[in-house]
Amino acid sequence: MKEKVHIVKVGGRILEQPETTDRFLHDFAALGGLKVLVHGGGRTATELAAKMGVKTRMIEGRRVTDDEMLRIVTMVYGGLVNKQVTARLQALGVNALGLTGADFDVMRAHKRPERNGVDFGWVGDVDATDGRRLAELLRSGVTPVMAPLTHDGLGHLLNTNADTIAAETAKALAEEFDVTLSYCFEHAGVLLNPYDEKSAVPIITYSDFLRLKAKGVISGGMIPKVKNCFDAVEAGVNKVIITRADALGGGRGTAIVGRIEA
Amino acid sequence: MKEKVHIVKVGGRILEQPETTDRFLHDFAALGGLKVLVHGGGRTATELAAKMGVKTRMIEGRRVTDDEMLRIVTMVYGGLVNKQVTARLQALGVNALGLTGADFDVMRAHKRPERNGVDFGWVGDVDATDGRRLAELLRSGVTPVMAPLTHDGLGHLLNTNADTIAAETAKALAEEFDVTLSYCFEHAGVLLNPYDEKSAVPIITYSDFLRLKAKGVISGGMIPKVKNCFDAVEAGVNKVIITRADALGGGRGTAIVGRIEA
Repeated sequence: MKEKVHIVKVGGRILEQPETTDRFLHDFAALGGLKVLVHGGGRTATELAAKMGVKTRMIEGRRVTDDEMLRIVTMVYGGLVNKQVTARLQALGVNALGLTGADFDVMRAHKRPERNGVDFGWVGDVDATDGRRLAELLRSGVTPVMAPLTHDGLGHLLNTNADTIAAETAKALAEEFDVTLSYCFEHAGVLLNPYDEKSAVPIITYSDFLRLKAKGVISGGMIPKVKNCFDAVEAGVNKVIITRADALGGGRGTAIVGRIEA
Repeated sequence: MKEKVHIVKVGGRILEQPETTDRFLHDFAALGGLKVLVHGGGRTATELAAKMGVKTRMIEGRRVTDDEMLRIVTMVYGGLVNKQVTARLQALGVNALGLTGADFDVMRAHKRPERNGVDFGWVGDVDATDGRRLAELLRSGVTPVMAPLTHDGLGHLLNTNADTIAAETAKALAEEFDVTLSYCFEHAGVLLNPYDEKSAVPIITYSDFLRLKAKGVISGGMIPKVKNCFDAVEAGVNKVIITRADALGGGRGTAIVGRIEA
């Protein structure tokens, strides 16, 4: 039987408030077994940009990353959020190691090409993840804490969506481990009614996803999030869950099950 | 015979200009054998603070680090400088891993207590360095890139002088390795005449140091720098050199030799 690894992605919003951060990091520290934390940090970057007089431009919910914005996300994701979380986890007895894709060359990407006149700038689409390095760290008792930054192997850092980092990490570990991937955010799961936290569906199959998307129940930023989940299942990840951060490890939320059907 | 390790500390000033950064990182990448890079980043932090309307306060050349300044140095040292250098080194074929003291709990410190009414804030004095972890990384072909940040094990990051980080790293590795410690900065070494780069002394003993300090030839920020060097020699570091960044590996600069005499 394969050893279990739990990959937990936590949204930037949870890490913006001291109370939710405390609660989340305690819950994460209390998880037994091997684990990886992947964090976002979007709104903190937007706030720093505003303080520095740099405009934030979003296209389809994704940040356009020019030279100045790359400096900001490198500071916020790779420095502020990543190192604060690492230091906090150390205090909670977790031997955390903060990583971007450039560290150990652990996640390499290419700059997303301009498409239909849309240029996202220094945004990276992942090409390769060093699952062997991550496995070695995990087996030696280390908990990787991954920032949403990759690199292109040519000396450039790239801004990469944290959901994607989590899915790619899960996929890279799926061959060797029994992987659970949890996406923690502020809702109870995939909601049938966005105003009712009790309306979270316990299980979604791919045909449910297509149906809910067509009905507009799954929309906006939830579409790529759920799509990422199915990609992970497709790549051999055993279990994918979308859940509220404070329900981590409690087995609640929406489980993504089954393969992508053509 | 012990295996050799070269620990190179580079000042923030060298890493501020694209040309000097390029030159330095190429020279560092070209160094053979096991190596560690320790970087500063002071002026970039001062500039960011100014942009954000945060005042920089220095006492005896050391930065006073209040809550806001800690956020800034965490972003600049742990994020911007550390991750850019790491990505650049990867492109040059060096398997770099960016670290603060919190990562792997590799360097632990305590908050410097208030002394004579002077409170430096979130500044850390180093207590312990995990030489075994660094040795393991080095032997597996990894080059640690260390930011001037430590942690207290209680969840707080601490701002720690980069010269000190380099000396502590050298000391922690001295038992197992034949360690050379190079401090790279913008001058040719310890200068007898601050306006003449040709006046660098090739060798300083501890009695030379005391004499030059008494005469005011070694003054200001050079005093703790040279003192750090003698502490490292005292702790078993084989060779300590103060040199110009572009002379790295060339055997020039000022060599610090001999023990501290009472």
